[in-house]
Parts: sequence; structure tokens; C-alpha cells
Amino acid sequence: MQGELELIAKIRQRAAEVPAPRVTRGIGDDCALLRTTAGEELAITTDFSIEGRHFKLEWHTPESIGHRALARGLSDLAAMGAKPVATFLSLALPKKLTAAMKKEPSWMDRFYEGMLSLAKEEGAPLAGGDLSESSLVVADVMLVGTVPRGKALLRSGARAGDKLYVTGALGAGLLGLRILEGKRKVSVEAETDALHRHFYPQPRIEQGVALRGVASAAMDLSDGLSMDLARLCAESGVAAEVDAARLPRAMEATLAEALHGGDDYELLFTAPAKKRVPKRLRGVEVTEIGRVVVRRKGRATVALVDGKKKTALEAKGWEHFS
Amino acid sequence: MQGELELIAKIRQRAAEVPAPRVTRGIGDDCALLRTTAGEELAITTDFSIEGRHFKLEWHTPESIGHRALARGLSDLAAMGAKPVATFLSLALPKKLTAAMKKEPSWMDRFYEGMLSLAKEEGAPLAGGDLSESSLVVADVMLVGTVPRGKALLRSGARAGDKLYVTGALGAGLLGLRILEGKRKVSVEAETDALHRHFYPQPRIEQGVALRGVASAAMDLSDGLSMDLARLCAESGVAAEVDAARLPRAMEATLAEALHGGDDYELLFTAPAKKRVPKRLRGVEVTEIGRVVVRRKGRATVALVDGKKKTALEAKGWEHFS
Repeated sequence: MQGELELIAKIRQRAAEVPAPRVTRGIGDDCALLRTTAGEELAITTDFSIEGRHFKLEWHTPESIGHRALARGLSDLAAMGAKPVATFLSLALPKKLTAAMKKEPSWMDRFYEGMLSLAKEEGAPLAGGDLSESSLVVADVMLVGTVPRGKALLRSGARAGDKLYVTGALGAGLLGLRILEGKRKVSVEAETDALHRHFYPQPRIEQGVALRGVASAAMDLSDGLSMDLARLCAESGVAAEVDAARLPRAMEATLAEALHGGDDYELLFTAPAKKRVPKRLRGVEVTEIGRVVVRRKGRATVALVDGKKKTALEAKGWEHFS
Repeated sequence: MQGELELIAKIRQRAAEVPAPRVTRGIGDDCALLRTTAGEELAITTDFSIEGRHFKLEWHTPESIGHRALARGLSDLAAMGAKPVATFLSLALPKKLTAAMKKEPSWMDRFYEGMLSLAKEEGAPLAGGDLSESSLVVADVMLVGTVPRGKALLRSGARAGDKLYVTGALGAGLLGLRILEGKRKVSVEAETDALHRHFYPQPRIEQGVALRGVASAAMDLSDGLSMDLARLCAESGVAAEVDAARLPRAMEATLAEALHGGDDYELLFTAPAKKRVPKRLRGVEVTEIGRVVVRRKGRATVALVDGKKKTALEAKGWEHFS
């Protein structure tokens, strides 16, 4: 890439603004070096953000794209009850966006601004990565976090009899997308709320940490409740029932949006019925939305309970931009 | 992605064939979990392999693309003297390649075959990653390695008076590429050698480990000696001289190919003049190619010494496919 060294020097300078107590060697060598401490495990996740699939250049500002790319990974750490220690970013850009770097702030500057603001907030310093040219924007974010040994929240810990919970409200990720597509009209207030949540989702790191020792299983809602809950059930070897009336929905989001919409980045978790689960975790609402039941042949893995009706909840998964 | 769960199940099964002593939780949760031990640092690197830039589907078999994608990252670990403990792969593929998954072995099967063979050889088990669809093939490989605390080989440790070394022979990466492009004709023997090295470069993990306590600075040769040596000099605040006649060249590679060709994945390192440096490291030749000198204003950072002539060596960098 033309001017690659110059670009790296600039990124290195900006990255240095985020405190990085665990990073003994950051950008500038073949690898980054991280300090570990006794009694902890590392939690590691990687997430793609690809133009046309996870965002559109016409709809998403560079700041939002940077924020969302990092939020996806942070949300995975949150789901394990882990705290971030370092971020790695592999970023491929079309020439038109790197060529524009002389314009200040450039597309890249604004992307890094969005990413590093969130990185600073959540203590996830940028420690390395890769840069390349490509015909479309591809960001791959890798997060390294730590969790005390044996304390990570897993998808596989749910047991029949546990209750099912979510943090926050669901459906804003998809509602925001539909507003951008011109497919949905809502009140100004609801539109502002949905777009804000869509553009700047808030990963639930502190909530995940608070759930250590409370939740029996957890995961984050990135592909929509119906699909993600089916995955949690598969890993735990259980089934689940969701009470439609209890689902906390984002302002003016439909039930279908709350059930099948992706990109919400709230936490889905289970806890034994006797466990005291707070109504709020660090300022974020926690809602009981159903229960874990025994898995039986011929019965749906995930069921939706609506009044007296119980129907199989199909995993409709994540609606992408194409 | 259609059939994503099925794909992940398949990858998980194949990944399980590589022993993973540090991975306490692999593919199947929000994050992978890795065990750390006291007294070590983590070395982490990420490397893109992008269609059209790092490989071409017409020239490179899926096995070679998978091998090369992993070799790039392993080579970065080698450069730090680190040993791999886990690999993460983010892979985006066009529909035509994922749709072909019913043909056995599919493109993806063959890609994983190439990657996992090398992973097994080098002890770099696949512990997680991401899958997506994209209009072109993008692989981003993240490697996690470990090195005893304070023992990592850095780019910044070279001092004036040190000698300069490389492992193996240079120029095969670029010579192989030129043969593929139809730009170079060489003997059958040299062609076989260059293409093998181009398609299946061998990362120098064991050699990197053996250089702990020997090398004062090290890096891997991924973008070509002229560019990479300039980077090492910049990080160390020194200059360097390379003796043209001493450069170990791959069979029939020209001096220019050895100086400026990328994708060789040999190690470039420096060591104090008094340090005993073995002539071979675990079966791979080590060659003294020059020396580290004081950086002076108005003098080239990297000079090429050819007989009595000393000229500035321009960093021509990596010739990519476009």
C-alpha cells in the first residue's frame, strides 16, 4: 500500500492515546507482546465487518463502522464474562479511501476515531494488526480478554429448570436497518433511539463481569434471539421457551424484530431458578424472558409462548444487507 | 451464510485433529479460552491473505492458499522467537466457493487441508475465527504464541558493530511469482524449487526459538530484504550494509529478486560481532550478509556493497499481483 509506513506511524501515534497496561510491545514489530498474570485464562474472538454485508458506505459513517467493528468483538468478550486487554485490527481498504488520506480528517482517521473512542471507554487498546488494499472495505477485529481461570461464562452451562434472561431491549439493530432501507416509518423519538443503537451499539462488558458466578450460561445476541438461543440450547443440550409478552422491545420495535433481529449486542443468559438475579446490572435492565426445559425428540428446541399458544420458534437468523 | 452451522461443525471436527494443549475451549462459544502459564509473554500477530493481492485463484491451489495464509503468521512468531499455541482464522468467501461445498473435497475442505497440515506440523491448533460471505476471498489469520518473559527478539535491538544474518536462501518467493506470470524462464530444477518455495514457504519457528539469547534483533522477510531491513534499521536507530556477493540466493534467482522479492519468510537477524552464531540452525543454513553501522545524516540507511562500490539500496518493497 502506498504510504503504508506513514499510515502505520499515524495509527501508532493515535493508538498510544489509549492506556495499555498489558501491552509490553505494541504496533511496530512482527508481533505485539502481552503480559499475562497467574490464575487467568485468555478469551479470544475475531469478527469480520465487511462492506455490503455488515455495513454500507452510504448509510454508515466511518465513525460508526469503526465503533461497530470493535463492539462486535467486545460483545463476545462480554458474553464470556471477560475484560478486554488488547485489540488487533486487520483493515483492507479500496484505493479511493486510502488515497483520500491527505484530506483531514480522512475516511481512515474517522474510522479510527470511532474505534478508538470505544476502545478507550472499554479499556481495549489497539496493539497491532494488518493493513492492505482491497476492492471493498474489510475490517477483521480480534479481541484478547482475560477472565479468572474457570470463571468464564459458557454457552454450554444451561440446565433444564434454569430461567432465561436478557439485558437491555431487543430489536433496535434491525429496526434501525429497516429505517435506513426506507422499509419502516416510526416516530421521530423511536427513530432517533433505533438509529443510535444501530450505529453505536453498547457492548455489555461490565454486565458480563457482574454475571460471573450468577449465570449458568451466556452468549451475546449478534444474530438475533431466535437463532442465538437455538445455538445456546444446542451447546447445552437443552430446549427453551420464550414468553412473547415478556420480551423487552426497543421503542416501537415489533415482536418479530425483537425475536429475529441481529446486531443488538445484548446478553442472553440463563441462571438457576434459585439464583438471585438483579433487576438491573450497572444501569442496564435485566428481564426474565422464559425458561430452560428438557430437550425432547419431536419437540421444538425453542418455543414461543404467546398467551396460551405455544409454537415452535423458527431460527430466522440475521437479515443482511443484500 | 447458508449452511453456516453445518460448516462450523465440520471445521470444528477437522480442527480437533490438531493437538491443542493450551486451548481449554475451542470453536463453538463466543470466544476461545486459552490457558497461560507464569513467566511468559504472549506474542500476537494478524495477517491478511487477500485474493488478487496475496494470491490468485488461477495460480494457487486452495491447499497452497491455506498453507501460505498460516505461514505468514507463523513467520511473524518465528521472528520474535515465539512458539505458536493457537490459530484464529477469519475467512470470507464468494458464494460460488461455499455453494460448491457438496462436492468433496470442496474448495474450503482443500483450503483447510493446506492450513491444518501446517498447523499440525508447527503445533498451531485452530481455536476459533469467523466465517462470512464476500465478493472475494479474504483470509485473516491471527496467531497467538508464547515466549519466556523478556526473551522476545525485537526489531529494535540492533547496534552498530553487530553482524547481519539471514536464514535459508532469498528470492524464491518472487522468482516463483514471475514464473507464474510467464515473465521468467529458468531450468526445470530451479522452477520446481522456486514454485515449491512460493507455494509452500516454510516458517522458521525452530530457528527463531534457537536465536533467543543469540540475536540482538530479528524480523521475518515478508516484503523483501531491502524494505524489511530498512524497517529494522528504523526501529533500532541504526544503518546497515549488505554485501551483494554474500547474499544466499535461491536457485537461479537474480540479485534483484533476492534483494527486493517478498514472500520468502526467512529470518533476518543481527548479533554482536563476538557472539558465536551457528552456520546452520536445525538444518537451515545461516549466512552472514553484512553489518550494522552508525546512522548518519546524509548517508543511506541501507547500503549495498558490491566489490568496491557502495550504493544506497532503495527499498523497493513487495511486488504484488496487480
